[in-house]
This record gives sequence, structure tokens and C-alpha cells, in this order.
Amino acid sequence: MSGNTFGKTFRVTTFGESHGLAVGATVDGCPAGLPLEKDDVQFELDRRRPGTSTVVSSRKEKDQVEILSGVFEGSTMGTPIQMLVYNLDVDSSPYSSIASKPRPGHADLTYEIKYGKRDHRGGGRASGRETVGRVMGGAVAKKLIKTTHGAEVLARAIQIGPVNTVSEPDFEAARRGLSSEVRCGDPDASARMVEAIETAASEGDSLGGIVQVMARGVPAGLGEPVFDKLDARLAGALMSIGSVKAVEFGAGMAFAGMRGSDANDAITSINGSAGLVTNRAGGILGGISTGNDIVINFAVKPTPSISKAQDTLDLLTMDSVEIRITGRHDACIVPRIVPVAESMVAMTLADVMIEGGFINPGRI
Amino acid sequence: MSGNTFGKTFRVTTFGESHGLAVGATVDGCPAGLPLEKDDVQFELDRRRPGTSTVVSSRKEKDQVEILSGVFEGSTMGTPIQMLVYNLDVDSSPYSSIASKPRPGHADLTYEIKYGKRDHRGGGRASGRETVGRVMGGAVAKKLIKTTHGAEVLARAIQIGPVNTVSEPDFEAARRGLSSEVRCGDPDASARMVEAIETAASEGDSLGGIVQVMARGVPAGLGEPVFDKLDARLAGALMSIGSVKAVEFGAGMAFAGMRGSDANDAITSINGSAGLVTNRAGGILGGISTGNDIVINFAVKPTPSISKAQDTLDLLTMDSVEIRITGRHDACIVPRIVPVAESMVAMTLADVMIEGGFINPGRI
Amino acid sequence: MSGNTFGKTFRVTTFGESHGLAVGATVDGCPAGLPLEKDDVQFELDRRRPGTSTVVSSRKEKDQVEILSGVFEGSTMGTPIQMLVYNLDVDSSPYSSIASKPRPGHADLTYEIKYGKRDHRGGGRASGRETVGRVMGGAVAKKLIKTTHGAEVLARAIQIGPVNTVSEPDFEAARRGLSSEVRCGDPDASARMVEAIETAASEGDSLGGIVQVMARGVPAGLGEPVFDKLDARLAGALMSIGSVKAVEFGAGMAFAGMRGSDANDAITSINGSAGLVTNRAGGILGGISTGNDIVINFAVKPTPSISKAQDTLDLLTMDSVEIRITGRHDACIVPRIVPVAESMVAMTLADVMIEGGFINPGRI
Amino acid sequence: MSGNTFGKTFRVTTFGESHGLAVGATVDGCPAGLPLEKDDVQFELDRRRPGTSTVVSSRKEKDQVEILSGVFEGSTMGTPIQMLVYNLDVDSSPYSSIASKPRPGHADLTYEIKYGKRDHRGGGRASGRETVGRVMGGAVAKKLIKTTHGAEVLARAIQIGPVNTVSEPDFEAARRGLSSEVRCGDPDASARMVEAIETAASEGDSLGGIVQVMARGVPAGLGEPVFDKLDARLAGALMSIGSVKAVEFGAGMAFAGMRGSDANDAITSINGSAGLVTNRAGGILGGISTGNDIVINFAVKPTPSISKAQDTLDLLTMDSVEIRITGRHDACIVPRIVPVAESMVAMTLADVMIEGGFINPGRI
Repeated sequence: MSGNTFGKTFRVTTFGESHGLAVGATVDGCPAGLPLEKDDVQFELDRRRPGTSTVVSSRKEKDQVEILSGVFEGSTMGTPIQMLVYNLDVDSSPYSSIASKPRPGHADLTYEIKYGKRDHRGGGRASGRETVGRVMGGAVAKKLIKTTHGAEVLARAIQIGPVNTVSEPDFEAARRGLSSEVRCGDPDASARMVEAIETAASEGDSLGGIVQVMARGVPAGLGEPVFDKLDARLAGALMSIGSVKAVEFGAGMAFAGMRGSDANDAITSINGSAGLVTNRAGGILGGISTGNDIVINFAVKPTPSISKAQDTLDLLTMDSVEIRITGRHDACIVPRIVPVAESMVAMTLADVMIEGGFINPGRI
Repeated sequence: MSGNTFGKTFRVTTFGESHGLAVGATVDGCPAGLPLEKDDVQFELDRRRPGTSTVVSSRKEKDQVEILSGVFEGSTMGTPIQMLVYNLDVDSSPYSSIASKPRPGHADLTYEIKYGKRDHRGGGRASGRETVGRVMGGAVAKKLIKTTHGAEVLARAIQIGPVNTVSEPDFEAARRGLSSEVRCGDPDASARMVEAIETAASEGDSLGGIVQVMARGVPAGLGEPVFDKLDARLAGALMSIGSVKAVEFGAGMAFAGMRGSDANDAITSINGSAGLVTNRAGGILGGISTGNDIVINFAVKPTPSISKAQDTLDLLTMDSVEIRITGRHDACIVPRIVPVAESMVAMTLADVMIEGGFINPGRI
Repeated sequence: MSGNTFGKTFRVTTFGESHGLAVGATVDGCPAGLPLEKDDVQFELDRRRPGTSTVVSSRKEKDQVEILSGVFEGSTMGTPIQMLVYNLDVDSSPYSSIASKPRPGHADLTYEIKYGKRDHRGGGRASGRETVGRVMGGAVAKKLIKTTHGAEVLARAIQIGPVNTVSEPDFEAARRGLSSEVRCGDPDASARMVEAIETAASEGDSLGGIVQVMARGVPAGLGEPVFDKLDARLAGALMSIGSVKAVEFGAGMAFAGMRGSDANDAITSINGSAGLVTNRAGGILGGISTGNDIVINFAVKPTPSISKAQDTLDLLTMDSVEIRITGRHDACIVPRIVPVAESMVAMTLADVMIEGGFINPGRI
Repeated sequence: MSGNTFGKTFRVTTFGESHGLAVGATVDGCPAGLPLEKDDVQFELDRRRPGTSTVVSSRKEKDQVEILSGVFEGSTMGTPIQMLVYNLDVDSSPYSSIASKPRPGHADLTYEIKYGKRDHRGGGRASGRETVGRVMGGAVAKKLIKTTHGAEVLARAIQIGPVNTVSEPDFEAARRGLSSEVRCGDPDASARMVEAIETAASEGDSLGGIVQVMARGVPAGLGEPVFDKLDARLAGALMSIGSVKAVEFGAGMAFAGMRGSDANDAITSINGSAGLVTNRAGGILGGISTGNDIVINFAVKPTPSISKAQDTLDLLTMDSVEIRITGRHDACIVPRIVPVAESMVAMTLADVMIEGGFINPGRI
């Protein structure tokens, strides 16, 4: 319950408010014997950090991770791995004027309804900053599935606002996108994406987009029917990221217009084992992995915090008011969601691999 | 683990193979005091039953539910509600010839890889027949959320193969679709959908489509951030249905191309409470319900069992072979998925309502 | 939640009221490939069945199990194993007069408070008959841990009312007790136990006792610190059996009076591995199994249903009344709890073995 | 899985090794609106801290808690409450010589078997220091059940080694014991307990004992049959504390020798409601609370770390060796277990109260 823990066997609990003292995560259920250094986590945190390009928020978060437990002499012990970063560059001043004025498209109103109180500063818990903990958990998960199975998870932006790139699954493009400002991997499209973001920002507006996340090296036979199908778990994992509003596997929505004879992946012998000729299914059949790349696209809505005027309500007076949101906000969070999405997929795979007996839960 | 139980507080465990002795469900966690009759369940089972129209499988499943426990003198007791139907009209003969030949697009191959054995007859556990248990659970859930909150869940087909209807959320169209052969609610589109299915069937092929499922009367404030957001739970629930390959909330994939100023729903005062002017978000913000209708579209891939020739492998000989699947199969399962989708959404809502304190877990 | 499911990986959900249509269990999470016949389950059900001796209830329950799913061609498939027995020899007449008069020492009053309604007939859900489902689950669990690890669980009565036998852990005495009327294994003590039960019964009264349950062949390294210690799980499992009021591991309560130098088990080399010289700890240290026999004693309170006059309240009139409970009740349930306790321990071990990677969750 | 999280709705995850950087806990699932100050937690931590008397370890842990998240303007927000204390007074030197020599009666050997590596310093995770996190969680739980229901949990030592005091449930004695060195509440027995501990310590040995933990003000109707009975949950919670080897409810082990007519608590009318004349059941019937005080006794084994010579094995050489454990160890941990036991009971009650609808999960 209560929602701040992800996973059944590889369990990640995140904590922290955007402008509170710290944010972080506890990883419970990582087997003993996994080599793990602070740098493994720091590398991933650096990828989600703002202030690394002209197109993302200028908040300066150094986000230097501390690992407080669970690691001894360079590897895990099977005990909880507690990680945190203190919130240093916090400026809550832009929030005081809108404390009682829920921002459209944000969780402000629904949190107010549900809890009756919230930390309005920086969005409190319902802030993109919460994903710091996800990325910490993801860093451990990535190391675990890489070490045990050679499996890798990578994502890339395939659409930002009106600009898109080839949507065919392309693992190597995602690898190239690792160092790209918009995490796209297609230099030409990237340039146009940056331009589109800058234009929207200059007009006080924001953009959404589509991210493609892929997993390579996932063994066949992973996933638990009936309700815990691998795609059900992955869909839930990705939809739990703020701003994600749609998720599709393989051919996705396009399956609706296909015929069975076009949609089915034929079965053949590959290196002496049964395998699929094509991968329209996106790597999962009947909720169980096929051994092909897992391929998922998901849609990200435009950042709700915009400086354009918007209509809302002052909850103290119940008067209609207009707000213009100032502060440091990304005009498009798609690039920053890329490592978060990878983290969610990696954590899901680590979890399901332990659950399914693909990774020993005690020690590797 | 192990995947056959859905939910945390309102828990539904399904069991049964397609051609085994029986299929059914156990509902645990339904509060005491809910009026429940066999007919409440039978009504929903009748909606998913094949043989009710020209466009679905001709298998004659009478599917008369027995409630073995949990109900006393017309209402629930808070104890497990055990329901089953015996499998009566079973014809396993078409399956013997393909026992070792996994059907493309089916779970045959992945089950074989994962478990090393399976009941090949009728698809065993990985059969649409498994949804009988889901619909039983859904029937109880629907009764529970209707009785306690007046909430209703309805779905309708908005696309079948090449034919679609207006996709704007339309709860009343779904209500009209209750009695429609293809569960569409638009007579003109329905006629063309039937025709498209018949054409595909006559060519030994099959169609997919898009279902829109909506929930009305859901109280605001429902859902658990961070990982258990209401949309994350619903996405996982719907993706757990066989053949579902994509799911989107509100404007869904279209959010990717929007600007923030177009995507955000403005906030206003409605009958003295804060509410939204529009519902692009699909009834959920920050993972918590807004009180608006919940609106979800999902894509269904074409039925993988087709009589057209397909390439596969004989796992005994590892020879490539061609199969033509005979037996009684729906050329399009979209109409039959409609009540299943409603069930998954209703079970999710019942679960989250109990979890969130909206329904007393002991007695209503 | 909701309490009718036991286990995390090897999950057993029981259902059914004592005088309802049926009682049974669903086992989810048993790996594929375990040989399982109806007789495996029937054998254990026969051990808990009343009417098998002069000292237990005369209710004639044939309790012929039906396995409705999950088993195909003689072994499990990794899908839910649904088992049930119909309630045949039901006589609810003795209960109508006490429907509103909660029986002292029973769950009648607390169920009434919690749920507001209950099936009063035969105790409804809070009846010893609920343990039919536990024994079904236990039968599968026993087969699983025996097949994969050669592990065995056996229990025996070491005290019934005023009569006791040697309490030193004695696995072979438990094996001898399998065929004993009071499941004791000590012929002399058994005779006196039977006599004590008959005397109490003749006086309209009942007896309690102590059961010793042991597991042999449990691998070292089993159990999950911190909150899920193996002994914590086992204690919870055994305390979940109706009438159990105390549970102790190894030297148990006697540890309170010992000194550390007497309590600690020295460590030595046994066949080249580290092992313990003695087993005062009862097979568990720091919540993890040592490889020694697991040894647990637990206390069973006297059957609350007695024909002697007792003071209670008529909940309809709120008048104090005297009741004498008629119907068919065991004057001592200790012998019948023996197979139930074994089942709880076996299910716990199966669960923890899968969780800990000692048994592959997919297939054995 | 993985064992470091307690609870289903009110969830406490602890982390940290004894000689690592920090220990602490995350509380997830505490409703919004609970007044909570650092002092609430510090008060309880001070009760478990060593160095507060002559009879406990001389390790100087200041243990000043930091609350990093979840609390805003003096009360909870419904988001995770992250608490930690840094480990300051750490002296790992006594442990280096026994790194490869498992201490008898400790988890050293079983951790080595399970994980293949461990932090041997101070016992690592399997140290009494892990209970810091439990007490943090307990502090929040105590505040929650007190604020919402006026319920209180208190424990006291009723036996230490050869010395005992009246074992009849005595809530006020426990309250008096709050300020007593051995948490007993009986001045005369306390003095003799201190003497017994000092004697054992002077002989290089240690003592165990019995703790009685009671909960007052618990509403009737709490608990979830069948497997999640309130006593099953409490037994598991208490058995999860290191060194606890037996637990009994109400008359406990003594029930074994009683007759039903002596064991049952008669039912009568109390202030117009049904209640019990006596409380032999210890406040729980059929797994559901009766509204009476919950009364539990549990046995604590003598501290395994003693300076007397003990036989063990050097795991590097597999040679038998003798060890004498130096360092700062309590000769009897019974007094320090008192607040830990209260914490486990309070957390269980908070959890079950939310689960059962007695506390709103969103906000109080």
C-alpha cells in the first residue's frame, strides 16, 4: 500500500520532498556479492540532473549520492542499500505566492483533496525531484541485470513536440543518444528538437514527446501470468512516472488496424532454439519474454508548469484567479525522463528476474 | 508472486485451464454486508460468453456460476467468495495435432520455455477462457462500487480493424453498446464492424481494435502516489488482459504533440468545489483521481488463431512446419474483451477504494 | 490483506464455511513439474478427518478431494491448483438455538463485532473445518519440499491435559504417532491421553495440550532477516491456527532462566562443514536455518465448545443466558491439529525455499 | 520479500549496519495530519539507548534522530517519513580478531552461509543496533494509535535470569517501570534483577528473561482471519526481534493443562455492550481483538556475546578454536528489548488498524 515502494523482490522505496532536507531511496532485496561503487549511482544521477544543457531547468543540483548502508568492501551484502542526496540549491520563494493556487495539470489539487495538506514548495513529493530515488534504484538494478545476464536497458527520445525521428526500435541510436542533449541519437532531429523546445520556452509554453525504451539481453521465459504479466508490470512501472499518459508495446496502437496474418511473429529455429522471425510483439508474448528486445514507446505530456497565464482557483477564497508560474522549470522533460524510464524498466526486470528464479535472491 | 491474484485489498485469484474441469475465482477482501446474488455474476458472465452472436466463437459455454462460499442469506460475510463454472462443451480434438507446434502470436512458445510443460488443450491457462474468473471478480467489484459510491464502469469498441467510430469519451454510447453485437453503441459503425469481421473471417484472418473504458462516479482523491498511482494500477490491470498491447489515458499518445497551454485542464469552481473545466487528463492527475470520468483507450491485437497458413516450428523435431489453426475461434475478440476490461477497471477501483479508506474493509 | 491467503511465493488461499457448500484451497506458485496425484492430498485429509477414532468428533466427513486445475498428466503445470471438497454430512440444527448467543472462547462474538453478520452454522468460517484447505495446501507443500530437498515435517502430541510424554525432540516418535489415535507415538502416554479425554468428555468438558512439530532436512541458510526471520514466519503460521495460544522454538520459555554459557550451541566441524554441537536454538539462528532439525512446541487451548453450562449473552435481547453446547465436538482437538500444524510448517518452508532461491519458482 | 520491511499498510523499512555510516527507518503509510516532532522519536530512542545505566552496554550512542522527509509544519503529510541517526561512537577493533570465527548463539554463521559475505564489525546488520529503526517506526506508530484511539502499548520485565516478579498482567507496573533501570516496575524485584545481572557479568556470563507487553485501548473487532489473525501478526512481529524464542498470549502455555470450563472467558453485558468477564484469552479471540487488554509474554534468551570461553570454528582454517568475546555487550538485553517490543506491537496495531478501517489511510 501507500505507494512509495516499487517491486516485490527487488524493492525500492523512495522518500523525500523537493524542497525538504533530502531525497533518496532504500533498495532492499539486492543479492549479496554485487560489485557496487558510489560511481555506479552517481553516473546515472548525473544523467538526470538538470543544469546540464540549455534545454533543461537551471536548478543546480549537485546531487552527490551517499551510500549509507548495504555495501561493504566494494560489494553488496544482501542488506538494505540506503542512498540519499541532500537538497542543496533550494529556492522556495516562487512557490509562496501559489501555495493555495493549484497549478493546472499538476498534482497540487489532487494532493490537497487526498491529504488535506502538502508541502507546496517545489511540488513537494509530487515533483520530478522524486525521481532521484528512482534513478538510484535503477542504477543498482542496471548493475545487477548487466552483471548476471548481460542485459541492458536504454531509452531515447523519438518525438519532442512536433519533431520526430525514425521510430523503428534502434538500440544503437539510444546508445548514441546517451551523450545527446535531448537523448535522441539522431543529430539532425536532435537539433530540431532543441530548437522546438527553445521556441516553446520563449513563448512561455512547453512540449511533450515520446520516449522509446528498450531492453536487450533479457532471457526468454521471464514474467508471471496471469495478472503479473511482464508487460503489465512494465506498463505500471512506466505509467508511475509523472507525466506519462500512454504506453505501448511493440507495434502498440497500430495493432488495432492490423490483421492477424500481419500481426503474428512467425516462429523459426534460431541457433538451434525456437525464436521469432520478427518482433512486432515487442519482446513479450502471453506476458512472458520471448528473448527478443523488449520495445516500449510511451507518451509524455507537456510540462504543466508554464509561464503563460492559466486559469485556476484560490482554494482559500474560492475565487477564480490567473497564475503565471515562475521558477526554474524544464520546458520539456522528455530528455530527463529518459534515464528515469530506463530505471523503471531495469528495476522491473531485476524484480521479475529474482521472482522468476533467473537471479538468486541470496547471493550472485 | 506467481501472478494469479489481482489486487491488494480486494483480491481476486483466478484458476482453471480452458479444457480442464472448471474455471473460476476466489474474491477475498469484499466487505461484509454487500447484497450479492448469483444473478449479479451470471449477468456479467453472459456478456462475455461466446455463442451469443454471429461474430464470436461458436463454443457453447453455458457457464452457470456456482457461488460456493462467502455469501449467506443474500449478502456477503467478509469471507472469501468462491465461484466456479464447470467446463462443459469442451472439444480438445483440434489441439492434439498442434500440441508440439506453438501457434504464432500465442503464449504457447513462452509457456513451453518457462514451465517446460503446459496443458496444450484450448490454450490451457493462457486462454481467453481464463477471463471467466476475471468477470466473476468484476461482477462483485461492480456491485461494491455501485452500492457504496454509485460508481459505474462501462466500455465500448471504438475501432475494429479498419472501422472506427467517434472516439470522444461517450459514456452513454457505451451504455447503448451493452446490447450491441460488437459493443459499440453506434449502429452505423457497428454494422460496418460486423461486416469487417465477417470479411476477415471468411479470408481465414482476424482483426484487432480499440476499446474505450470509462468509469463514472469515482470520487476525487483516489490513488496512491508514487509507484501505485491510479493510472499505473489501471494500466497494469488492462495490460494483464491477453492481446492488449497499448493503453492510454485521456488524450493519451496525442499529448506528445501538444503544448502545455493546450494540455492542462484549467481549474474552476464547480458547485462550490474545485474542479476541472476540461478532462484531457482522463480523470487522473498526479496518480490521483480528479472526480471526472476516468477515460482509457486500449489497443487489442488481432486474434492470433487464424486458419490462414502460418510458419512455426515443431518443437519435437525442430523442423519448420506450416500450421492452419482450426477449432472455434473468434475472428475478433474486441467485443468479448469489453466486459473483461470493465471487470479489470472495476476490480482496480474496488481495490483502491478500500486501500484509500473510501470503502470500509470490514463491512459496508 | 483480508487474511485468507498464506505465503508470498507459495501462496495458499482457503475458502469455505463449515456448513456452506464446500471448503477448499487454491495453491498458486507451486512450480511446474511436481508429480501430484489426488491421493497425495487425500492421504493428508484423511489424517485430519474426524470420525477416525473414539476421541474425536463423530461428524462423518468423507472429504473426497477434487483437483479442478493446475495438474496435467500427473504433475503440476505452474498454474493454480484448485482443490475442494463438498460439505456433505452437515447438521446445522444444533446451531439455530445459539445463533444469537456467542459461545465463550469462540470467535462468535468477535466476528459479530467485526462483520455485523456471520454464518453461525457450525461456526461458519471460524470453524476447525477451515483447516481442510490448510491441509490441502500442506499436502502440496510437503510433496514439494520432499521432492526437491528430501525435507520432512512431522508433529506429535507431547501433552494432552494432565498427561505428558518426554518432550525432548523426537522425530521418530512423531513418525510412530502417525498411526496413533492421539498422534503421540508413546503407547503408554497415548493410552493415558485417551483416558483423560474420555474422562473430560464424560464430564461435559474438554482438554488442551502441547504439540511438537519438527522439520528435518531443511537446508541451512533459509530465512530472511530482519522482519521475515524464519522463526517469525513459523510463529505467525502456527499462531494462525485456531486455539493455538503460545509457541516456542528450541528451548523456548526455558531460555529465560538460562545463562549464555548454557544457552549457546557451540560450533564445530561436521563432515567438513560448520555445524552445531547441540540444537538448543531449535534449528534457527538470527532468523536463518542452521541445518539442524527445526523444533517448535505450541500450546493448544481446550476446545471451547463444551456441554457444561456457560454464561453468555443473548445479543438480541442483551440478557445474560446460560448455554450448553450440543452437537458433535471434539473434547480435545490436539490430535487433529497435528496434521494442520505440519501443513502450516510445510507451507512456510515451501514458501521460504522459493523466496530464498532454494526451489526454482518456475519449474523443478 | 527480503525482510527489511514490516507491515502492509503502515510500513516500516529499516536499514543500516551496526558499524556502518548510519541506521534508520522509512515509515510509509502514515496518514497525513498526525502531529509529529523530532522529540516524539527521540524520547523512544533514549529509552533503548545503552549507556543509561550500570547494567547495559557502555557504548555511547547519542543517537540524535534526523527526520529528513514526510513532516511539514509540525505534522505528517502522508508521504514517507525518513529518519536516521549516524553511527558515531563506533569501535570495530574487538571484531577484527573474530571476523572468521562465528560467535556461538549469534547470526554470524547463518549469515555467512546465506550471503557468503557480511559486515562482521559489531554484528553488521544482525546487531541489536538494527532496533534503532524499529524504535523510530514504533514512535510514529505509538503516536498514531494514541492520537486516533487513545491506545497505549507498554512492556515490562517480569523475569530476568532467576529473578521474577508477579506475572499477572499489570499495566500500571509497566508504567512505573518506564523509569526503572531494568524496566520492571517492582522495586524489590528490580534490585534483585540488577544484582543478578551484575553477578552474571562478573562471571563472564549473561542472563535472559521474560517480557510482558500489553496494549490498552485497542478497539474490539481488530484483526483479519484466517492467516492474518491479530495474534499471528503479533507473534510474528515479536519473534522477529533478535533473541526472542517464545511468545504466549493470555494464559499461554498454561492453557495446555486447563479444561475448557476454566479456560473460556464468560460473556456478559458491560456498559450495554457484550464483553468478557475475564481475560484469559489475552485480548484476542478467533484472531480478532475483544476490546480487553492485549497481553503477551515472551522469552528472551541470554545475550550470546559472553567473555567466557566458547568453542567455535575458524572458517578460514576450519580449525576448532576457543573464543572469548570482548567489546561492549549487555549482560542482559531484556531491559533494552522492552521499548523494542512496544514498538513492534505498536507498529502491528497501527498497521492492522489502517488495514481494518479503524484509521483512515489518507488523513486523520
